Amino acid sequence: MHALYLKPKEHRRLLGGHLWVFSNELREVPRDIAAGETVQLFTSDGRLLGAGFFNPQSLIAFRLLTRDEEQADRDFFRRKLLEALKLREKIYPETETNAWRLVHGESDGLPGLVIDRFDQAFVLQSFSAGIDLHLPLFAELLRELFDPKAIVVRNESTLRELEGLPLYRETVLGESDDIHQTIRDGGISYRVNILEGQKTGFFLDQRENRRHVRKYSAGADVLDVYTNDGGFALNAMHAGAKSTTMVDISQEALQRAEQNARMNGFGDFSIVAADAFETLGRLRQESRSFDLVILDPPSFTKSRKTVPTALKAYTKLNRLGAHLVRNEGFLATASCSHHVSEEDFLAAVQLGATQAGKHLRLISRAAQPPDHPVLLSMPETSYLKFACFYVTNL
Amino acid sequence: MHALYLKPKEHRRLLGGHLWVFSNELREVPRDIAAGETVQLFTSDGRLLGAGFFNPQSLIAFRLLTRDEEQADRDFFRRKLLEALKLREKIYPETETNAWRLVHGESDGLPGLVIDRFDQAFVLQSFSAGIDLHLPLFAELLRELFDPKAIVVRNESTLRELEGLPLYRETVLGESDDIHQTIRDGGISYRVNILEGQKTGFFLDQRENRRHVRKYSAGADVLDVYTNDGGFALNAMHAGAKSTTMVDISQEALQRAEQNARMNGFGDFSIVAADAFETLGRLRQESRSFDLVILDPPSFTKSRKTVPTALKAYTKLNRLGAHLVRNEGFLATASCSHHVSEEDFLAAVQLGATQAGKHLRLISRAAQPPDHPVLLSMPETSYLKFACFYVTNL
Repeated sequence: MHALYLKPKEHRRLLGGHLWVFSNELREVPRDIAAGETVQLFTSDGRLLGAGFFNPQSLIAFRLLTRDEEQADRDFFRRKLLEALKLREKIYPETETNAWRLVHGESDGLPGLVIDRFDQAFVLQSFSAGIDLHLPLFAELLRELFDPKAIVVRNESTLRELEGLPLYRETVLGESDDIHQTIRDGGISYRVNILEGQKTGFFLDQRENRRHVRKYSAGADVLDVYTNDGGFALNAMHAGAKSTTMVDISQEALQRAEQNARMNGFGDFSIVAADAFETLGRLRQESRSFDLVILDPPSFTKSRKTVPTALKAYTKLNRLGAHLVRNEGFLATASCSHHVSEEDFLAAVQLGATQAGKHLRLISRAAQPPDHPVLLSMPETSYLKFACFYVTNL
Repeated sequence: MHALYLKPKEHRRLLGGHLWVFSNELREVPRDIAAGETVQLFTSDGRLLGAGFFNPQSLIAFRLLTRDEEQADRDFFRRKLLEALKLREKIYPETETNAWRLVHGESDGLPGLVIDRFDQAFVLQSFSAGIDLHLPLFAELLRELFDPKAIVVRNESTLRELEGLPLYRETVLGESDDIHQTIRDGGISYRVNILEGQKTGFFLDQRENRRHVRKYSAGADVLDVYTNDGGFALNAMHAGAKSTTMVDISQEALQRAEQNARMNGFGDFSIVAADAFETLGRLRQESRSFDLVILDPPSFTKSRKTVPTALKAYTKLNRLGAHLVRNEGFLATASCSHHVSEEDFLAAVQLGATQAGKHLRLISRAAQPPDHPVLLSMPETSYLKFACFYVTNL
């Protein structure tokens, strides 16, 4: 195995539990090692730190796989998959759901790999050169462990460009029928297109938060902004919402949401195909109000530099949303921007609500679900913030 | 109404949403106003900020009741109670529970007042001179709104000494039979003694977190440390734990826990009446291990000064606890120390687990339940941290 050497002191973050080495932390970036190769990592004075994936083309030059003197071979990767599977099986009994994230990259010890399971189909995403080289192995292991009907690789994220990797999608296994899967989650069904849906086909990370809004939904007029597949709205309808309005700028998303609503036997809902900010402003002009407003926007920033702009957007969005909440109603609001801290996000929400003349009591705070675990030693594994408020008029 | 004047600039925290004025922020602390009197508060240049409770004997010299020009009269307090009630009624349908915190002090706009409801009984705690003066009014309003069988005042917290208030308990309403109430919560019953139980008789603040551990409990060997009334353990048994061990240093607490377990038809549990740290050490020496370890200690610090000592205690407790978690098991751990931040608490847990040779994946993070709301503008209203981890061997 090739060897990499760190500069003096650059091993400290790794010893603290982090899994990455940046290229400027290496004594030199060897040019004779291929992207994705598994190499050994040493401190500047020659102590072995472990083995991992090397990529000379990425700022993240090294991603740790193991701290032990062991081979990162078929058995190793199989063991990692089974360890990840054990967690999901314990948390999500098959009676409750047939969809979960099997592997959440670094958090599950498989740096750069995401695997989502949708009933009989598996969707892989690779974000590292090392995982790219092992995709055939992971496909083989999935066949061995789950005997699935479909396996799809969705390597379309622009994050891959930072690793010098091409963007593509590929059907590894499955007929054209198999790209449509119906998943169940807490009594609700969703239709998922694993080849065409966003990212891996469906956002699993809001599962628990979607269920959570049921608490506030019975008999309520509910507004679900950025509804996408309708996840939050469907849970509100399931809990007996009086009315539900789904907002999304994408016609395709609204078609999926509508299809999902009908498949679950929910008939009484409205859809609005328009920009979220514009729609919230218009609803206010029309003096509309709701018992529960849900705001689940896409990430407002992909980098640290644009955090101030993102915070302004969160303040504005939550001001517009809070305006529409009736006295003694609820606001459920999320942020999936990794670079925005929970503290800053909550402060932005608070500011927006105050501007809207609303008083907030924080009644629930949550983060990622158990199938998207977080490593405390690695802040990069954490991104989702979700908070619910009891709203009264100031 | 008497008037208080702030020193220049000392109104800023209040304008940010905080409700307290400290005595050193007042231009002068008038000696002719009685403790508990409702007064008006002005900026140094004479702008009205609102009205609230004054207490010349407390560091917290003023607690804001209203920012409007309104009387803090019977109607005002009745409205505050109804606003708080509305939240609890929406979140906790009677079919699910008959116990909740009706008023969580500042968070519900009633500074220094706590009211817990246990079925047909209400327990009040006062932490401010102003609330003390209004206790007869609150008792009257509770009779009017709920027609309860018992009302008890538990003014035994030593925090009252900081306000110059005496410690006592008092039965305002009810016969001796009524001090025992049976509460239901998510399918589990508990016996509560509202006169003798700790604080208000029962810790309601871990309700959601207790239910949460059901996810990890089916078929599991569970260790519940600081079990008190058995709350976490009972939820584990309810979810089908294989075995449950309840640890507490208090024989009385264990008697309640045992009584609660039997009342719910759970027969298969062990109890250990001993110090938590000693017990965890002994279990390790005996090579015992568990699928789920729950750590819910009392506050380790009452002041900012002793936070470093508290963090050491959290690290040690979680090291000892993590030692006992089997590979691919779970650790559920809490802190109710207000002065310990979530970030510091999680770091202490992480350090303890690493010392125990365990790897942690954070799978859930929670705070206070909806009947203990938090004001983001007032950090003093936030205290509870709860986190669950998937534990593997390093």
